[in-house]
Amino acid sequence: MASASKMSVVPARRGTAVRLAKGQALKVINTHGQQVVDSWAFHADDLGEFMSMEHLRQVINRIMPRVGDPLATNHRRPILTLIEDTSPGIHDTLMAACDIHRYRNLGCTGYHDNCTDNLFAAMAELGLRPPECPSPLNLWMNIPVVDGVEVEWHAPVSRPGDHVVLRAELDCVVVMSACPQDLVPINGAAMTPTEAHYQVLS
Amino acid sequence: MASASKMSVVPARRGTAVRLAKGQALKVINTHGQQVVDSWAFHADDLGEFMSMEHLRQVINRIMPRVGDPLATNHRRPILTLIEDTSPGIHDTLMAACDIHRYRNLGCTGYHDNCTDNLFAAMAELGLRPPECPSPLNLWMNIPVVDGVEVEWHAPVSRPGDHVVLRAELDCVVVMSACPQDLVPINGAAMTPTEAHYQVLS
Repeated sequence: MASASKMSVVPARRGTAVRLAKGQALKVINTHGQQVVDSWAFHADDLGEFMSMEHLRQVINRIMPRVGDPLATNHRRPILTLIEDTSPGIHDTLMAACDIHRYRNLGCTGYHDNCTDNLFAAMAELGLRPPECPSPLNLWMNIPVVDGVEVEWHAPVSRPGDHVVLRAELDCVVVMSACPQDLVPINGAAMTPTEAHYQVLS
Repeated sequence: MASASKMSVVPARRGTAVRLAKGQALKVINTHGQQVVDSWAFHADDLGEFMSMEHLRQVINRIMPRVGDPLATNHRRPILTLIEDTSPGIHDTLMAACDIHRYRNLGCTGYHDNCTDNLFAAMAELGLRPPECPSPLNLWMNIPVVDGVEVEWHAPVSRPGDHVVLRAELDCVVVMSACPQDLVPINGAAMTPTEAHYQVLS
């Protein structure tokens, strides 16, 4: 990596879309250490091909990727590679992005920010509309599978400043959403969503 | 359940779509005991609402449903309920339906039957086209999660004649595909896909 862009923010409760050319990489930083960042990647030439958790798990034979793993699309080829991870490596591939239905089920009567709407809003800022909301790679989300069957919801085990680096294997659009979940402690015991940061490396 | 339709076949390597009215139920039978049946459910009034594994896992806090569990849609409400299961209860929610990309990665150069195409073909027989191929509920597919991280691919632990019963909570279209995977032993050590059977109960 010869150069790095300026550090940019993913505002708390919001999403951001970034274009990456093949070979560029994206550093995603858990600035305050307890923030889940839902992430997606779409092939720049065909938004119908995108990073897909149900295909990725088959390709890597794991429920969470580790450094060196390809992050596969629904066409079962790499769109990103996880090339660096300073955190303990706990990420989630099992859970859908939060959405209005999730917050209604939690008792919200009005609108609540959510990662699904953040995906569409972030893509719209680039003039793009994804064909669906794929199940995201939930960076730092801590969903242990206990006894092979049950899942639990815990605060992240990451620390302030931990980061991952994702290298683009295709020209793509990556979307990050700083998850606005503040009704369960998935973004830390304080239940206070924070911003995250990112940097494009090339 | 006051009455049952005739027993019908899901041919080996093929898919079938069935309409269910709310309150009806579908009995799916693993006739020969080692056949994985990929299954989907779409809301009859809105094909954009469908059974979704990444939403279902959040709703039930498990990676596989057990008797009594609601099978949730992408709107996080039940479309089916698993009301009966005579098998040991090992089903999969983690893996995408097989597709041409899966068989190409396994070395196939020509066409290979696959559950994704079976979904679209079965829906087309009813004059319907789903907006996407959601990640299916893979009945009897045996994908243990080991040590909370790694997944393995094993033959089913079900027995000939085992069945599940799915009750419709919404008017819906259910699709079953007798998985044509014959290159890895996910449909039994013989690697010979077989037919399955079903019956509508009302």
